Amino acid sequence: MNPLMKIAKNMAESGMQHNEGGPFGAVIADKEGNIIAQANNRVLIDHDPTAHAEITAIRLACQKLKTYNLQDYLLYTSCEPCPMCLSAIIWANISKVYFGCTKKDAANIGFRDDMIYEYFSGKHTSILELIPMDREDCLTTFKQYQEENKKIY
Amino acid sequence: MNPLMKIAKNMAESGMQHNEGGPFGAVIADKEGNIIAQANNRVLIDHDPTAHAEITAIRLACQKLKTYNLQDYLLYTSCEPCPMCLSAIIWANISKVYFGCTKKDAANIGFRDDMIYEYFSGKHTSILELIPMDREDCLTTFKQYQEENKKIY
Repeated sequence: MNPLMKIAKNMAESGMQHNEGGPFGAVIADKEGNIIAQANNRVLIDHDPTAHAEITAIRLACQKLKTYNLQDYLLYTSCEPCPMCLSAIIWANISKVYFGCTKKDAANIGFRDDMIYEYFSGKHTSILELIPMDREDCLTTFKQYQEENKKIY
Repeated sequence: MNPLMKIAKNMAESGMQHNEGGPFGAVIADKEGNIIAQANNRVLIDHDPTAHAEITAIRLACQKLKTYNLQDYLLYTSCEPCPMCLSAIIWANISKVYFGCTKKDAANIGFRDDMIYEYFSGKHTSILELIPMDREDCLTTFKQYQEENKKIY
């Protein structure tokens, strides 16, 4: 077993055993294999539905490196990232992810990862009502942002 | 303008003016309109690519209410949520979201929300390599989770 994936798996088991969250772990490393951050899912213990292993590892790595940009780093995760984590990975500019279990495996033990993927392909749209409101008023903020030539991340 | 959307817009402008992050704000309220949390994008100031306004508001609301479940709450956001935030909203069991600007408006001022949506529909797949590894080893953790009948969120 890959030693970094093994650490991700160990994190998953540690989080599970301490009832911190679901059985998921992740490691962020540089291209030489040096670990920058490792994390397990902390949804239950942190009262935070966003505290998946990958998101937590990204946050830890970014705190350590004082950046929002992890373009030179790799992510190892014990399970295929859900759409939230996958999008976070893209926002963080990580471009290579190794994953253990699949989203189907996660669905098989009761997690909704696969359902959320399907949502993005147009299924289960009834789970969420998305209602446009006050677009013209909100657009003035965007215009101001553009005029001031603010930083895009 | 809806008063809760107005607060989301004000948060967006405050975050922008203080260079805390992109021009995005969000409010979480109960069905009577009482505000539980309000936040702006903090990607730059927090060195956190996941600190979008909606994610930050969800974290704040969950801390306040000591839960990972916001099923009785509504979210108002000054811009259509990106796939990361939309997935976080689903994980938090929020079922109604009001949004101001659209993802196309965000793309027009330089943000990648729309590109990430397109990624989920099969485009731009070259931005991220997803590589399976050690699935059989990782599956043993899932089997243990199931056998111990642990909590699913």
